[in-house]
Amino acid sequence: MAEPQPSSAAFDRFAIIGIGLIGSSIAHAMRKFALARHVVLYDKAEAVRLEAAQLRLGDEIAPDIATAVREADCVIACVPVGACGAVAEEIAPYLKPAAIVSDVGSVKGAVLRAMQEKLPAHARLVPAHPVAGTENSGPASGFASLFVNRWCILTPPDGANPEAVACIRAFWEAMGANVEIMSAEHHDLVLAVTSHLPHLIAYNIVGTADDLESVTQSEVIKFSAGGFRDFTRIAASDPTMWRDVFLHNKEAVLEVLARFNEDLSALARAIRWGEGDKLFDLFSRTRAIRRGIVSQGQETAEPDFGRRKA
Amino acid sequence: MAEPQPSSAAFDRFAIIGIGLIGSSIAHAMRKFALARHVVLYDKAEAVRLEAAQLRLGDEIAPDIATAVREADCVIACVPVGACGAVAEEIAPYLKPAAIVSDVGSVKGAVLRAMQEKLPAHARLVPAHPVAGTENSGPASGFASLFVNRWCILTPPDGANPEAVACIRAFWEAMGANVEIMSAEHHDLVLAVTSHLPHLIAYNIVGTADDLESVTQSEVIKFSAGGFRDFTRIAASDPTMWRDVFLHNKEAVLEVLARFNEDLSALARAIRWGEGDKLFDLFSRTRAIRRGIVSQGQETAEPDFGRRKA
Repeated sequence: MAEPQPSSAAFDRFAIIGIGLIGSSIAHAMRKFALARHVVLYDKAEAVRLEAAQLRLGDEIAPDIATAVREADCVIACVPVGACGAVAEEIAPYLKPAAIVSDVGSVKGAVLRAMQEKLPAHARLVPAHPVAGTENSGPASGFASLFVNRWCILTPPDGANPEAVACIRAFWEAMGANVEIMSAEHHDLVLAVTSHLPHLIAYNIVGTADDLESVTQSEVIKFSAGGFRDFTRIAASDPTMWRDVFLHNKEAVLEVLARFNEDLSALARAIRWGEGDKLFDLFSRTRAIRRGIVSQGQETAEPDFGRRKA
Repeated sequence: MAEPQPSSAAFDRFAIIGIGLIGSSIAHAMRKFALARHVVLYDKAEAVRLEAAQLRLGDEIAPDIATAVREADCVIACVPVGACGAVAEEIAPYLKPAAIVSDVGSVKGAVLRAMQEKLPAHARLVPAHPVAGTENSGPASGFASLFVNRWCILTPPDGANPEAVACIRAFWEAMGANVEIMSAEHHDLVLAVTSHLPHLIAYNIVGTADDLESVTQSEVIKFSAGGFRDFTRIAASDPTMWRDVFLHNKEAVLEVLARFNEDLSALARAIRWGEGDKLFDLFSRTRAIRRGIVSQGQETAEPDFGRRKA
């Protein structure tokens, strides 16, 4: 895979609203690849703004959201999906004519509706979702290569401005991402499977283990290398972000969860009745999926994720 | 954590039956730490014996199980748990008086019963379970440091020979493991939580994703970095080993699965009714468990498992 190349500044003034893992990673990548003449960041939490200033993220930390977005060619909301509508409402009065507005939310249907409703007609909305992250959060957790060789999904609404879509596509490609375009509805179903359900299951199993009276927390921790510890990584993800994902992608998550539950019941039944062949068949089939993920560059081929010894 | 130190050979002749990830890792570690004067390996599959010979595992690859165990001070069965009883039956006639017999199975109650029934009265049985592994299998997948800083659980039966227990404890400690002793019944419950249920859930979610008609396999693979790919690692584990685990730890697995399902239903209900506080509370609580696992040296502190870019 080729390293992304620095490009001449695509934007004059670019505003990042929300300085968490994604917002700070975008700031790092934009500096590395020189994607704007001036990058301004804003976060509603003063402590976060101070930390971002100490980390020297972007060219300017704005003291208020109006200062951040005024004169910006492009504003990208890097906030929990439940906050996207409020951000759209707050920035609306200050947006430059025909400014591009985007986001990075893990849910697209609800975000698209919430933002469209609040933005002025002249704004050009291109929702986006970079499928990348770590379990860490906050302004210090970002890094420039987070998006390299990861996918970024754009879900432009009907009648979206083609130039704005091309501009956001080029922006993500310049940071090393592969871009795919699909409908918000399909996005929300696909991500319910590849991201939201895995997080739900991981949070759930860690909670279940923590609640058992017959097994101590100390035992759960000691013997976690048997498989459990893998789940704790995504169960350590940001609680606000994930609360919002589930509240805003309710239908798709409950739909794939119902499928998961049906399959799990069948598996439990096979265990209860000693149907070894059924278990063996499933356990053989699942290996192929991992091989696909590794061969398409979305996963390391090293055993145990290449974990270094703790 | 201190590197384990080479010790003077604790065993004269040591037999490893079954040359997969665990058997081959023991062979590597025994050589590194000089734990026996002579290590002989045997596997019922001829292709595996040939591969082990090419890999120069141990001091000798035996052509049959009788040759492997005759005169051995200690025989360790490194086979799927469903095969432990058969191995005990096969080795019984050839065991040296008072030979120590052990295993590495992920289930202890059923294995203990199956082996005890077939072994001669003079044999000294000390079941063991090193809680360590990778998703890879076969004789080429082993490495000497697999057990370093991992836990190994011993489940000696009532009336087990204390000298034999001390000997197996020292053996695992010499390979870098921490040793804990508990009853087979408690082991099977603890591991149902920390290992068996996680594997069941991982196999299940990968199967569910593969079966959805509305999302293509190519989409599942592309967007797997959203969380799904984490589950594919343990869902790529050896199908025979895991079929046997579920068939032989049925009661404990179904018991913890029932708890998991109750909790998952409550979580689904919270999503359906928009109870954000309940979600937020769980998602905050689960972070603490990971911190415990990292601080106790059972997990890397690096984000994303320290994965190198694929």
